[in-house]
Amino acid sequence: MPEKLLNDRLLRALRRQPVDMTPLWIMRQAGRYLPEYRATRQRAGGFMTLCKTPELACEVTLQPLDRFDLDAAILFSDILTIPDAMGLGLSVVENKGPQFARPVRTGSDIRNLGVPDVETSLRYVMDAVRLIKRELQGKVPLIGFAGSPWTIATYMIEGESSKNFSRAKGMLYGQSDLMHMLLDVLSRSITDYLNGQIAAGGDVVMVFDTWGGILSRDAYQEFSLGYMKRIVQGIKAEGRSESVPVILFTKGGGLWLEDIAGSGCDAIGVDWTVDIDAARRRTGGKVALQGNLDTAVLYSSPASIRRQVAEILAAYGPADGHVFNLGHGIHPDIDPDKVAVLVDAVHELSRPFHARK
Amino acid sequence: MPEKLLNDRLLRALRRQPVDMTPLWIMRQAGRYLPEYRATRQRAGGFMTLCKTPELACEVTLQPLDRFDLDAAILFSDILTIPDAMGLGLSVVENKGPQFARPVRTGSDIRNLGVPDVETSLRYVMDAVRLIKRELQGKVPLIGFAGSPWTIATYMIEGESSKNFSRAKGMLYGQSDLMHMLLDVLSRSITDYLNGQIAAGGDVVMVFDTWGGILSRDAYQEFSLGYMKRIVQGIKAEGRSESVPVILFTKGGGLWLEDIAGSGCDAIGVDWTVDIDAARRRTGGKVALQGNLDTAVLYSSPASIRRQVAEILAAYGPADGHVFNLGHGIHPDIDPDKVAVLVDAVHELSRPFHARK
Repeated sequence: MPEKLLNDRLLRALRRQPVDMTPLWIMRQAGRYLPEYRATRQRAGGFMTLCKTPELACEVTLQPLDRFDLDAAILFSDILTIPDAMGLGLSVVENKGPQFARPVRTGSDIRNLGVPDVETSLRYVMDAVRLIKRELQGKVPLIGFAGSPWTIATYMIEGESSKNFSRAKGMLYGQSDLMHMLLDVLSRSITDYLNGQIAAGGDVVMVFDTWGGILSRDAYQEFSLGYMKRIVQGIKAEGRSESVPVILFTKGGGLWLEDIAGSGCDAIGVDWTVDIDAARRRTGGKVALQGNLDTAVLYSSPASIRRQVAEILAAYGPADGHVFNLGHGIHPDIDPDKVAVLVDAVHELSRPFHARK
Repeated sequence: MPEKLLNDRLLRALRRQPVDMTPLWIMRQAGRYLPEYRATRQRAGGFMTLCKTPELACEVTLQPLDRFDLDAAILFSDILTIPDAMGLGLSVVENKGPQFARPVRTGSDIRNLGVPDVETSLRYVMDAVRLIKRELQGKVPLIGFAGSPWTIATYMIEGESSKNFSRAKGMLYGQSDLMHMLLDVLSRSITDYLNGQIAAGGDVVMVFDTWGGILSRDAYQEFSLGYMKRIVQGIKAEGRSESVPVILFTKGGGLWLEDIAGSGCDAIGVDWTVDIDAARRRTGGKVALQGNLDTAVLYSSPASIRRQVAEILAAYGPADGHVFNLGHGIHPDIDPDKVAVLVDAVHELSRPFHARK
C-alpha cells in the first residue's frame, strides 16, 4: 500500500485539483549553488560517483529540503545513465560536460544497442530511489526523471556537448531510418527505466527534452515528441492503483504547447519565454503547467524576486494546475538566500489565489 | 538618383510584391565556410582588421556573390562596432568571441556613453558601404545591419559572450532604470548608424536581435522590442524618395511574431522552430517573412537539401512576401558545394509558386 504523503500539493496540482498554496520545486535544486552539495561532491571525487552511489545520491537529493520548504524532492541523477548502461562509457568532466568514450555513429553501432535491464545495469538508480523514498518518510513526493529519446540521442551521436549538433542533425536529415532505430531503442529503454523508478517509489516522473527546442516543428513532432508520446503511453499502460503524473519539458518548446498537450502527459514544463497565461489558454485546461520564472531573476534583489513571482502567479490566476518552478535549471552562482526568498514568496503570495470560492 | 538594380527580387519580396522566383541570401554568407574568406582573414591578421578596412570588408562581402547566384549582398561587419566606437575597446578572439576591455557596469559608466558620430568614429563602415555599393554596380541590393539595443547591451555589460547573462539580467531585473538609460543611448546610436548606412547606399537594413529570445515575453517587449520599434520609427522618419525596408530578426522570437509585426517593420526573420505557414497566418500579411531552413540541413545530402527546401516553399505557398534564408547564420564547417545546391533548389523549386495566375 502506498505510504500517505504529508505534503501532497505537487500531486494535487499536477492532477489539477485544489491546493492551499501553489507548490514549487526547482530544477537542479540539488546542485552546485549549495555549499553542502559542493562538499559532498568533493568528498565523492566526481559527479558520476555521486550518481552511482545510492547513499551519496540520497544525501544530495535531501540537502535542499533541509534548507527550504520545497514541495518535492527530485532524484539526483543524470540524463545520460541509460547510454552509460548501454556501454558507451560516460564520463562527466567538470566545466566540460559529459563525454562518451564510444559514441554511436553507424548503423551497426545502433543495431548493437540493447535495452538495459533496470534492476541490473541501472540498479544503482533504483536503489537510490528506494533509499530516498525511505529517508523522506512521506514528507514530500519524489520526482523521478529521464532524458528524452532525442536529447539522449544527440549526446550519443555527438559524443559530447555540441553547439551545432552537426552529426545528430546530419543523421536526422540524411539517414532518418537510422535515427528512428536509435530513438526506438531509447524510448523502450526510457519507458522501462521510468517504470522502474515508479516501482521503486517515484511518485511523479518527468522527461527532460533539453534539445527538442533546436528542431523545426516537423522534426520535433517526428523525432522528439512522437517518442515521448510512446513513453507516456508505456507508463500509463502499467496497471497501478493510482495514476502516476508524467511531466514533459521541452526547453524552448513554447511554440508547440498544443502538440505537447495532446501527448497524454499530465503536465508541461514551460520556460520563461512563454507567457504562462497564454500557455494556460492554449492548452485549455487539458494539462497542468510547471514554471516559469527566469532563473536570472535570482540575481536581483529580494524585492525584485517577489515582484516577478507575483506577476507569474497573477498571470496564471486562480485556476488549478500550476506548479511553480524556474524555466531552466538554477545556475551554480546563485546565492542560496535568494532561493529562500523565492520559496517564501511563492507560498505566501499564492495563498489568495487558492482561497475557497 | 538611386541606381537601378539589375536584380530587385529581394526588395520586391520585402515589399510583398510579385517576383519570378523566391529571392534568397544566407546569414553569414561572407564567412568562415568559404576558403577564400579564410584566406583574406589570414592575410588581414584578424577579424576586426577585416571589419575596419573598407577594401577588405568589400572583398569578403563580394566573395559569396562570385560563387553563388544570391539575391543580395550583406555588408561584412560586426554587431559590436557601435560600443567599440563608444570607447569600450572591442577585440574579437578566434574561437572565444568578442571581448570588451572596458565593460559597462555602473550608472556612471552608462551616463558617460555618447552617441557615436557615424561619419567620424564609424566612418570605416560608411566607407565600406560606399565601396561595396560601387563594386556591386547594381547587380543585387546591399543589406546594411546593426545589432539590436538589447543584444549589444548584453555584450557591453557582460564584457564578453555569456551563457547565463547574469550581469545583464541582474541589471534588467534589479536596476531597470539603468538598463533603460543604456538601451536609450544605444537605440539612438543604432538609428543614426543605420540611417548612415542607408545614406551611404544600403538598400535594406536588418536588426539582429541575437539575444532577445532569452527574455520573458514581458521583458522582451519592454527591453528589446520597444527599442527596436524606436529604431524602425527613426528610419521611417527620414524623408526618402523610396522607403527602405527594415527587417527585424529575434532569434528564438517565434512566440512573439504578432508583437514584432506590430513594430512597423517590413519583414521578420524567423528561425526554423517556427512553422513558416503558421508564421504567415499569425502575421496576417502585414509583413514579409525571411527564413527559415535549419542550418544543419546543409550537413545532409543534396537530395535531402532539396526536399527540405521544397517543404518550406510549399508551406509558405504561392503568397508574396517570402525571402528564403537559413534560420541562423551558416556554420563554419559547411561544405560550400551544399550552398550551391541550396541556392539552385530555392530558385528552381520556387518558380511554380510565382507563376502568373
